[in-house]
Amino acid sequence: MTNTVPVLPSYVRDGWWTPADASAPGGTAANAPGASRGVVVHDASTGEPVTRVSAEGLDLVAVLDHARDVGQKSLGDLTIHERAVLLKQMALELTAHKDELYEVSARTGATARDSAFDVDGGIGVLFTYSSKGRRELPNANVVLDGPPEVLSKDGSFLGRHVYTRLAGVAVQVNAFNFPVWGPLEKFAPAFLAGVPTVIKPATPTAYLTEVWVRILVDAGLLPDGSLQLVSGGARDLLGHLRLGDSVAFTGSADTARRLRGSVAEGVRFTAEADSINASVLGPDGVPGSAEFDAYVRQLVTEMTTKAGQKCTAIRRAIVPEALVDDVVAAVGARLQEKVTVGDPRAAGVTMGPLASREQREELHRQVEKLTGAGGRIVAGPTDLATPVEVVRADGSLGPAPDGAFTAPLLLRFDDAEAAALHDVEAFGPVASVVGYRDVDHAAELVERGGGSLVTSVATSDPVVAGALFGRLCAANGRVLFLDRDDARTSTGHGSPVPHLVHGGPGRAGGGEELGGVRAVHHYMQRTAIQGSPRMLTELTGVWHTGAPVRGSGAPVAGADAVDGGGTAVVHPFRKALDRLRVGDQVVAGPHEVTLADVEHFAEFTGDTFYAHMDEAAAAANPFFPGRVAHGYLLVSFAAGLFVDPDPGPVLANYGLENLRFLTPVSPGDRITVTLTAKQIIPRETDDYGEVHWDAVLRNQDDETVATYDVLTLVAKEWPRE
Amino acid sequence: MTNTVPVLPSYVRDGWWTPADASAPGGTAANAPGASRGVVVHDASTGEPVTRVSAEGLDLVAVLDHARDVGQKSLGDLTIHERAVLLKQMALELTAHKDELYEVSARTGATARDSAFDVDGGIGVLFTYSSKGRRELPNANVVLDGPPEVLSKDGSFLGRHVYTRLAGVAVQVNAFNFPVWGPLEKFAPAFLAGVPTVIKPATPTAYLTEVWVRILVDAGLLPDGSLQLVSGGARDLLGHLRLGDSVAFTGSADTARRLRGSVAEGVRFTAEADSINASVLGPDGVPGSAEFDAYVRQLVTEMTTKAGQKCTAIRRAIVPEALVDDVVAAVGARLQEKVTVGDPRAAGVTMGPLASREQREELHRQVEKLTGAGGRIVAGPTDLATPVEVVRADGSLGPAPDGAFTAPLLLRFDDAEAAALHDVEAFGPVASVVGYRDVDHAAELVERGGGSLVTSVATSDPVVAGALFGRLCAANGRVLFLDRDDARTSTGHGSPVPHLVHGGPGRAGGGEELGGVRAVHHYMQRTAIQGSPRMLTELTGVWHTGAPVRGSGAPVAGADAVDGGGTAVVHPFRKALDRLRVGDQVVAGPHEVTLADVEHFAEFTGDTFYAHMDEAAAAANPFFPGRVAHGYLLVSFAAGLFVDPDPGPVLANYGLENLRFLTPVSPGDRITVTLTAKQIIPRETDDYGEVHWDAVLRNQDDETVATYDVLTLVAKEWPRE
Repeated sequence: MTNTVPVLPSYVRDGWWTPADASAPGGTAANAPGASRGVVVHDASTGEPVTRVSAEGLDLVAVLDHARDVGQKSLGDLTIHERAVLLKQMALELTAHKDELYEVSARTGATARDSAFDVDGGIGVLFTYSSKGRRELPNANVVLDGPPEVLSKDGSFLGRHVYTRLAGVAVQVNAFNFPVWGPLEKFAPAFLAGVPTVIKPATPTAYLTEVWVRILVDAGLLPDGSLQLVSGGARDLLGHLRLGDSVAFTGSADTARRLRGSVAEGVRFTAEADSINASVLGPDGVPGSAEFDAYVRQLVTEMTTKAGQKCTAIRRAIVPEALVDDVVAAVGARLQEKVTVGDPRAAGVTMGPLASREQREELHRQVEKLTGAGGRIVAGPTDLATPVEVVRADGSLGPAPDGAFTAPLLLRFDDAEAAALHDVEAFGPVASVVGYRDVDHAAELVERGGGSLVTSVATSDPVVAGALFGRLCAANGRVLFLDRDDARTSTGHGSPVPHLVHGGPGRAGGGEELGGVRAVHHYMQRTAIQGSPRMLTELTGVWHTGAPVRGSGAPVAGADAVDGGGTAVVHPFRKALDRLRVGDQVVAGPHEVTLADVEHFAEFTGDTFYAHMDEAAAAANPFFPGRVAHGYLLVSFAAGLFVDPDPGPVLANYGLENLRFLTPVSPGDRITVTLTAKQIIPRETDDYGEVHWDAVLRNQDDETVATYDVLTLVAKEWPRE
Repeated sequence: MTNTVPVLPSYVRDGWWTPADASAPGGTAANAPGASRGVVVHDASTGEPVTRVSAEGLDLVAVLDHARDVGQKSLGDLTIHERAVLLKQMALELTAHKDELYEVSARTGATARDSAFDVDGGIGVLFTYSSKGRRELPNANVVLDGPPEVLSKDGSFLGRHVYTRLAGVAVQVNAFNFPVWGPLEKFAPAFLAGVPTVIKPATPTAYLTEVWVRILVDAGLLPDGSLQLVSGGARDLLGHLRLGDSVAFTGSADTARRLRGSVAEGVRFTAEADSINASVLGPDGVPGSAEFDAYVRQLVTEMTTKAGQKCTAIRRAIVPEALVDDVVAAVGARLQEKVTVGDPRAAGVTMGPLASREQREELHRQVEKLTGAGGRIVAGPTDLATPVEVVRADGSLGPAPDGAFTAPLLLRFDDAEAAALHDVEAFGPVASVVGYRDVDHAAELVERGGGSLVTSVATSDPVVAGALFGRLCAANGRVLFLDRDDARTSTGHGSPVPHLVHGGPGRAGGGEELGGVRAVHHYMQRTAIQGSPRMLTELTGVWHTGAPVRGSGAPVAGADAVDGGGTAVVHPFRKALDRLRVGDQVVAGPHEVTLADVEHFAEFTGDTFYAHMDEAAAAANPFFPGRVAHGYLLVSFAAGLFVDPDPGPVLANYGLENLRFLTPVSPGDRITVTLTAKQIIPRETDDYGEVHWDAVLRNQDDETVATYDVLTLVAKEWPRE
């Protein structure tokens, strides 16, 4: 029967591909791994065959070459914002197909709530990266990192850090547990950076990854070569990688170690490996406290969501020795009350099966290691061999031997130092409770995990939280503090959010996933560049002090100004984005600041700070020679000097950055302002864009009085179409 | 004779240590590597023995434990700024001992100019990190990375990234060429981060490293356990490292590969490995141009500084095919004219010997590989076996067979694709010239290096620079653009500056050195933390919106205000740093903004932008409902509301950050300002510190009108002592 199961196609070189012989009749045993017929995978609840998975005969080198040639080219033709807009369109397209995704997701054993994590979670990553890409990155392909560094006294030699995309391909090797979210959370930042992706899904759930890839392909949203899907064994794929390529692996620490050793120097290799995550209950989290309840609720959620098949799930519940009994009792009761195991398509089911019977066998092997090391099962069936009673697809109760069902298990360790407790990952609905003596001991136990993705701490005591914070941060990618204030709104121990990094040190694999633009940087090379202001302006598209400017001279608001060379130039505020260039400049002033101005401003605004009003007191201040003008008065006068009053392409001043008052201005000083277009960021989906202006105020002695960036919104065309 | 040479001591566990048997008479051959008597090292010019190097019998595990226990403790007792102040004191102390350092440096073969790179360069790193640490990092031990992320609609659950120091020890394995700068440029960022260092210097020049360590020890500037020096073989030191520890290796790519494989998972391993750096001459850099001259001058400098023993030196001169002859001729002439090889203590010498005769043998082996692969020697002696004529210590001319002298060599490759050209590092005064066809070809040739520390480009043509920039950034840690504007002020191809990252991808080893705070981050763990505003405030020391506040209610400038509970509270501007706490708050207003205010402000400042003055035109703007108040007027009114006029601890408003105008204010609107102490940064060497205030302006409908941070300087005590 399995011979008739269709083979799952791969999407490579911008087309669908299936092994030529895989659907042919006859031949070797169909579900032997590596056989030409591929591996048959089954519905997690019913055991029915779903598909066969094989990439035998696929030219993997051609896949890589296609990404490096066609993918790099098509992505490089777009800016970061253009790619961000595509990510949003992908998110909308997948949202429109959510029912289909949920339906197929149920076959993997996922309940609707599990699918929300995987499907909606994956879509959410696309939305977040689309939004963050446009808000936090430039509409360009060079990303600046930090301010310029002036490396010569005269300012003619500068240094700066830039991020540019890696020149290769981003290969993903995924785990079976999140066939939608897993590949998407790696794809989104790579795509935004401009690096093409090759997805290698895990065999047991590869058919769900194929669904969303097909949806995006059918919608025509994938630039050529930007995404390829290898549905099947990747064989020696990693051996063909080179400088500029990267691997993002999710899976076991052992496999991570082996694969890491197989890639060439210069290939970025990061892993999300098994992590023995911990959750610590503070000494103040006694029964009856909000923290105790939140702790127990979270632990049960983490044990049962995705049937515990999450890299981030809690494996170790580290609680005060005196509270072990209470926690065990409360968790046991809640598991009893809230958890119904069964086919996710049946009503009332809150926890589905594992992804496959192989996974169940593996889980039970790990549980036996834990019980062999002193872990006692204190909630759930102690006999692993007996099939659990579940709700079957038709709603009936009873064992379902063809499904990969298992019951949640809570273990208790009396010996907190047992190695297995801190080393063995039972990848399913399994957690172990252990007592700690004091907060230092709790921290030590967490550290025994050798580096984790996440640790959570339930306490409302800042002293306890602070003591743990000081030690846990160095050993964790993420630390969540749960207390009465956030118990209801917390996104949860086990839920990576796209805003925050996902990945932990040491055993957790050193992943560099998510965290907003941090993951985008992972697909880019940070390079220090050095050069003259002119050259750095040319290369980065951002004006640097000392680079050539256009226009200057006396300000003639609303009219043409005249530059140093006598050429009539247009006030830059009269230029829409189609004409404005970085380096366009207006110099305005001088404007004398009088004592009357200062007194009047003080009276008008109410800001009668003594430095403006009292000569003797001002002179006694360490920073002022005597009475000085208000900083806000100077900025206001400067605006009065450079603003062009009539309607024009500059639509609004939406903010200001990096304002520093450097030299006090005394009554009688004359100030001049120089305003230069520094950075131009057209918005993809609006008819205007952002322009950042470099503003410098100087006094009559050419001393710099203040520097800042003026942020404006400027129309793309004027008059508008 | 060598038996009587004293053994170089190690500095471990806060004391000096020498192998017990190493100075005893008799025993095995003294200069056999690994012998108990240690390795004898010699003056590079005269061959006289300088010292013996051995760490045999040293308990390396105790060294690591001392760093992890005592070093972590003593550094953790200080803040980043306190450590920064110590770095400056170290820099001053070494400056005071510069003569001694130069004298010993000369024994390694360094000319005074070479020593300036090594000694002054190392001191400069300390100064820069001291300054950057205080300007760019908080006076605390938690470094925030990016803004908070609001993760729940009601703001009760937040996320944020923090850097905290790694919990282990920073091990350095250094190369022989920069015995001062090399260890110091790794030490400074680790020390600033709060991570103790173990220095393993290279044997041939370990005696110079010992000198500066001794100077710092004698000055009492090293906190206990913060720095240890292992003068001798490190044996299995790296095998004892674990999560939280790091290795910064400088040396050959082969050794880097081997060592990288020997460290445990979770140990950060970075390398500065041999890098076949390139320098590209643009097609516009024809003879007679400023760029041609700068290119040739830089190439000769890079060949001969430190006798070419720099990881960053130019190995490949990639020039337009048509200009190869010109470059060869110009470089040859300049070598002839400017370079005098000899004992650096002799007058007129511009290039010293290599560090040792072993280095010379190794260099000649590599040169033979290059000539064997088609490289023709076009400047310098073609017979490597004949000793070169040098200026000896006494000023006489002639061969000095006991010294490690070698002559600068320029090679020319006709075949640009020769593998050796891009693979072989001849670590000495040797460079190869090769021609390229077009700019794409030049980029390809650079990339053939497989990842480099630095590439320089001499061109004044932005199109050429842009084309190279697009490809070179991904394959280089640093790219320097040389043109007529910066030719005179450039710090040079081969000179890492502490402001910019030092380290390149691929073959260059993936180093994470220098680059200002970027290198400090390398010794810290970045962790995402999640929690309630109160908890995040407690943990980071920085106030988060939604966290508890002290004081509020109507503003009574200069007098006590009354908080919500009716308790009399002091206006936060009346509190010096010894009393001010994050969360101290003043709420002031409402203040009605009238049309008369707007018109008056426009007239007074000259800012008559139509959005303030013309109802119809303003209403036509996409962002405004009609005439609106100036943003600067709102900020000025807000200051009038919250400022306390009388002399007090708040000394000055030195700037403003992150100002965003979010909701327009129409005439008749009433604004309220809420000002909350967000971050307090006492300055170590001043009697005041920085306070950042969170400012929020709201209108009568509680809509947020504007948000910004007010930056002030506040006295530590008031009245001042």
